Amino acid sequence: MAQQHLDPTDPTARAVPGDALAGYLRGQATEFLRALRLHRETGSGSGQNGTEDSVDAARALRHSARRISGSLHTFRPLLDADWSEEMRPELAWLSGTLALEHACAARLERLLLALHRLSGSAAFPAQSAASAVGGRVTGAGRGVPGPGTAVGTRGPATPTADRGNLTVGAAKAGALLERQLTLARTRAHSTALQALGSSRFHAVADKVAVLASEVPLTPAAAMSDLRPLAAAAGERLTDAVTALPLITAGHPYNAEALIHGLSPDPAPHPQDGPWHQVRLLLRLHRYAGEVLHGNGAPLDVRLLTAGQALNLHRDASEAAAAAASAARTPRIAPATAYALGVLHADQRHEVEAARFAFQQSWQKQAVGTL
Amino acid sequence: MAQQHLDPTDPTARAVPGDALAGYLRGQATEFLRALRLHRETGSGSGQNGTEDSVDAARALRHSARRISGSLHTFRPLLDADWSEEMRPELAWLSGTLALEHACAARLERLLLALHRLSGSAAFPAQSAASAVGGRVTGAGRGVPGPGTAVGTRGPATPTADRGNLTVGAAKAGALLERQLTLARTRAHSTALQALGSSRFHAVADKVAVLASEVPLTPAAAMSDLRPLAAAAGERLTDAVTALPLITAGHPYNAEALIHGLSPDPAPHPQDGPWHQVRLLLRLHRYAGEVLHGNGAPLDVRLLTAGQALNLHRDASEAAAAAASAARTPRIAPATAYALGVLHADQRHEVEAARFAFQQSWQKQAVGTL
Repeated sequence: MAQQHLDPTDPTARAVPGDALAGYLRGQATEFLRALRLHRETGSGSGQNGTEDSVDAARALRHSARRISGSLHTFRPLLDADWSEEMRPELAWLSGTLALEHACAARLERLLLALHRLSGSAAFPAQSAASAVGGRVTGAGRGVPGPGTAVGTRGPATPTADRGNLTVGAAKAGALLERQLTLARTRAHSTALQALGSSRFHAVADKVAVLASEVPLTPAAAMSDLRPLAAAAGERLTDAVTALPLITAGHPYNAEALIHGLSPDPAPHPQDGPWHQVRLLLRLHRYAGEVLHGNGAPLDVRLLTAGQALNLHRDASEAAAAAASAARTPRIAPATAYALGVLHADQRHEVEAARFAFQQSWQKQAVGTL
Repeated sequence: MAQQHLDPTDPTARAVPGDALAGYLRGQATEFLRALRLHRETGSGSGQNGTEDSVDAARALRHSARRISGSLHTFRPLLDADWSEEMRPELAWLSGTLALEHACAARLERLLLALHRLSGSAAFPAQSAASAVGGRVTGAGRGVPGPGTAVGTRGPATPTADRGNLTVGAAKAGALLERQLTLARTRAHSTALQALGSSRFHAVADKVAVLASEVPLTPAAAMSDLRPLAAAAGERLTDAVTALPLITAGHPYNAEALIHGLSPDPAPHPQDGPWHQVRLLLRLHRYAGEVLHGNGAPLDVRLLTAGQALNLHRDASEAAAAAASAARTPRIAPATAYALGVLHADQRHEVEAARFAFQQSWQKQAVGTL
């Protein structure tokens, strides 16, 4: 198991020398350059939103940027300090900028699927349902509604009575979210395109190109064992998990995630912070395992499950915030606001469910050595 | 264990003769008459809503009415058919009428407590919070707001911005629910008072007075064993439980209870029906156990736990419906509607939690013989 290799006290495990880190970084830099080439070839400028191929390329860019950045962090003492300190924030800026467009698309898909589930198939307008159920959002053909499309705002009273209003509310809420998140996504797409054409990006790309052939290790790095630094990343993760309210999370239906859901606290909920932090530390721990094992890294299913639960936690948390934010749109109809309230609470329950799933997978994991 | 005694195939159990039924019915009739006397003494007419003592007396009246009615149903073949068929609907009418006032009060308390939890202590107005946290709602001093108090309806715009609106929404939602449910409760109280003064009620009370001394058993009843009829009640319960979606319910966070929460289906959710039915059958099964064992009935904790879960299920289901119904009030502010949407979803989640709790207690129970 991956965790056992990370245990520096294990006398049977062999030391992992610094050149494994150099090999990993070279490999990720090569992946980065390949993704960048693919992104340019698949026509990043071919429309308002990217094609499916360019979405894949952007994902691959983020993928390697995160891994390089994470390894720079975990194995900092073994790398040239000045280079490392200059490189990390630039990679973080890049992957953050590239992630935004995908996040908007995924959030909209999640919210429309949830509205669809909450409304019943017959009640929800076919076009939104189709785009939600279609699985992956490719963005092709999904434009921004013109300024005249004031969906979700209070229009003339419809003849639909009582209960019908709530369904109309769900449809209006879906249209409002689609408008707001498509707009946010289009902006994120433009920002990403601008970023990829900027001199700031070209400087990062140049550095990554150098990294693909030459990793600035410290003179002592080649003789060092990578395992203690990888183990330290594991310990930071364990410490952060220990600080989580896992006993509560392991109790189904604890109703914690929605607590203060109507309070004036800023969204996203402050209670989500420690979970988001564990998500990042889990990622760093996973990357450290990749460095130690190279391509032969064993697949740790439980670690993957825990990570997936935390991804779900983040997605649901942000979707809930988006629903709450849409409810603050001026002049929306009460039925729209009601549907957004139900949707917000639904997503906060998914947050709670994700914490439960993490607790369950972590409990199994605790038997092994981290 | 109570269940073992209900097993007609158990050769070690002794037969329970029909006079145990007569004794039980006489006892419940006596309780009924005592509660009625108490209700009259504690001043049922002393105000808009009842005093705490008269609330207790009404509860005791319902308690014995339900038990008499339930036993008439389970042991029907052993009782005079005409008398039984005349008596049961009258007892059902009485306990239904008496239950309504209490249900309105409990529903309001549940919803205000939930809003309080969702709003955070600082954000929610002190007076509503106090009446909600005070535990038992006695009703003393809680009048209906005058027609001028148009709480929850759209007033002049407040200077509070963005997030603050949602909190204001929670407060307005609380005030709206308080207004609507207090009105419903006051109406239920008047209806109950009218019922208790009606000739229809006096006819029931006369019959119960006769029952306290003389139970109309069939000639064969004294020689009959009560256990097969009690076991049949247990089987009806088991059959109904088997038809419940228990596998889904036992999977935490299955998100079933809120499904179609925004659909035009009538509230309360049709999916709740089978659970409500099991709640009634569980009660009949419990009463049958009381008949067999008299005052010496052993306390079956698991049966109680399952019953409590189903009570919670019913309460949360009705509270969710009340929140949805309040959201259909004309001219409410969007922030009020949003808060009611969150509240509705929160209560539907409690419905789901109650099903999970029932499944857990039932699983334990299945080991024993029902």
